Amino acid sequence: MKLLLAGFGFIGKNFIRAVNEKITLLKSVDRDFKVVGVATSQGVLYSSRGLDVDKLSRLEKASQYGEEFEFGGSVKEFLEEGDADIIVVATPTNIETGEPGLTYIRTALKNGVDVVTADKGPLVLEFWELTRLAERNGCYLMYEATVAAALPIFSLYRECLQADRIIRISGILNGTTNYILSKMFFEGTSFELSLKEAQERGYAEKDPSYDIDGIDAACKVVILGNAIMGKKLRFKDVKRRGIRDVTQEAVELAKRSGYAIKLVGVVDDEPEVSPRLVPLRHPLCVHGNLNAVHFETDLAKEITIIGYGAGKETVSAVLNDVLSILKKRVIR
Amino acid sequence: MKLLLAGFGFIGKNFIRAVNEKITLLKSVDRDFKVVGVATSQGVLYSSRGLDVDKLSRLEKASQYGEEFEFGGSVKEFLEEGDADIIVVATPTNIETGEPGLTYIRTALKNGVDVVTADKGPLVLEFWELTRLAERNGCYLMYEATVAAALPIFSLYRECLQADRIIRISGILNGTTNYILSKMFFEGTSFELSLKEAQERGYAEKDPSYDIDGIDAACKVVILGNAIMGKKLRFKDVKRRGIRDVTQEAVELAKRSGYAIKLVGVVDDEPEVSPRLVPLRHPLCVHGNLNAVHFETDLAKEITIIGYGAGKETVSAVLNDVLSILKKRVIR
Repeated sequence: MKLLLAGFGFIGKNFIRAVNEKITLLKSVDRDFKVVGVATSQGVLYSSRGLDVDKLSRLEKASQYGEEFEFGGSVKEFLEEGDADIIVVATPTNIETGEPGLTYIRTALKNGVDVVTADKGPLVLEFWELTRLAERNGCYLMYEATVAAALPIFSLYRECLQADRIIRISGILNGTTNYILSKMFFEGTSFELSLKEAQERGYAEKDPSYDIDGIDAACKVVILGNAIMGKKLRFKDVKRRGIRDVTQEAVELAKRSGYAIKLVGVVDDEPEVSPRLVPLRHPLCVHGNLNAVHFETDLAKEITIIGYGAGKETVSAVLNDVLSILKKRVIR
Repeated sequence: MKLLLAGFGFIGKNFIRAVNEKITLLKSVDRDFKVVGVATSQGVLYSSRGLDVDKLSRLEKASQYGEEFEFGGSVKEFLEEGDADIIVVATPTNIETGEPGLTYIRTALKNGVDVVTADKGPLVLEFWELTRLAERNGCYLMYEATVAAALPIFSLYRECLQADRIIRISGILNGTTNYILSKMFFEGTSFELSLKEAQERGYAEKDPSYDIDGIDAACKVVILGNAIMGKKLRFKDVKRRGIRDVTQEAVELAKRSGYAIKLVGVVDDEPEVSPRLVPLRHPLCVHGNLNAVHFETDLAKEITIIGYGAGKETVSAVLNDVLSILKKRVIR
């Protein structure tokens, strides 16, 4: 299968590096597997014979690939002309417009191209439109990396809990806020100081609102609710309170009673993101940059999965989606 | 597909109850799905048209099924004569002989019958013989419930970490010892007293050796090492130390330094089961009856999964295996 990567930022570059490392595995599943294009905001780097992934994996910018290569065409043309079988969408997240990922995904699905997206914007906005589009066109639409990054959530639900009915999902879905709250918990620092350090370390943005006001976590609640619990959630349906008001004193008081304050996203009849008291003994109570997702189900009762919710570990989830599709598509 | 259940003890009965609850789901995957037999030490209850699962689910003994039904034949005859397509092995565990499960599994695989086993004995003894037998005969051999019961381990590895290389696995693999150690940790009771309570509650056997000497955990290390890390482990290869020597003082001392003593099974080049200091902040540090398995991998780096390692929750794993096989076998 011919893969087109859209986006050559942090995730895109690490994806290419992982493809390079795992090329033997990928070729063992699909001996014709190749990366034929990398789309950036500057254009599309393209080779029908397949790009040299080893070379690509050492570049900072796709435009450094080689002088003989020119950027040409648009992603849209590329998808319409059948030059790709699968697109990996690693574009920057925009939860207001979903672009540019949303247009890429729509175009791909309309043209029978399978989609793996790490960009959650399009799903937050148009989960059901895109799901139906995929079904109608016989395409796969996979998005493991969009919630809790490296943590397997959707494949866990799909493949490991096939008999279970999911009753409720709760999760620590944002690493930045968990870093801040953990720092307050373990070091007794104030919210302001903890946020400042998170910003200095690059865990939080200059405008930290997206994380600390629970916007990012609420986006993940939308996707979880739609994908796993069949709800028709939109962003506005998620009640949301961030961690700006969490005081040092509250954290300390909770700690003395055996609790930590965590920003928890809950998916049930009243989807919500808010700071909650989590018992220190509870599996959901993870610290630092970790994310955790806790499923309540009818048979297994409680399953919690913990791991990294950001960073280059994310490519584990992206590659897992790609391999799932290759295994289904390639007739051996 | 026609399912034969071997064993009508705790797991067998709860499996039938879950099949009854989930019959619509099972039939949606395979409209011809039926339970055609239940084998116990008294004989085989059998109906080629399918047993009444609702009725069966309310029985304590298979022999109460109905006067018109007689137990007839042996599991071996049953499997050889093609009266089953899939066998669920829920026989009592014997790690010295593997019987009766081992013979059932061998016979099934030799006759082209897919196997789902919750009995770990056969796998501890003959993992590779059975795996090769399954391959040679084009059969599925699935065993999700044999390690950490309800926790998805093998399906997680197979379906959710397809691109990851597993470097090391460590786990709290035995609920009984974790119950005892958690009691010592939280209530400051002695090992003897904690064991006694575990016995009174039915968590530990009268002869508790199987659990507290780490035998059960070592069996799981054998299966994990073989199934996930491609090792050729036998029980004797696992270095083993149980929790008999863990004192109240040691638990207290560890606690004051931010650790808990846990019986940890480790799968790497030197497979081992022993009491270890686990930082209270570490995701592996779960308490009570919970089990936890921690994967170290090259891409996702660290994934921990937590849930119930015993009890009727186990049927989640058994049914997941059954559904996986049905989905692969049934052409729709």
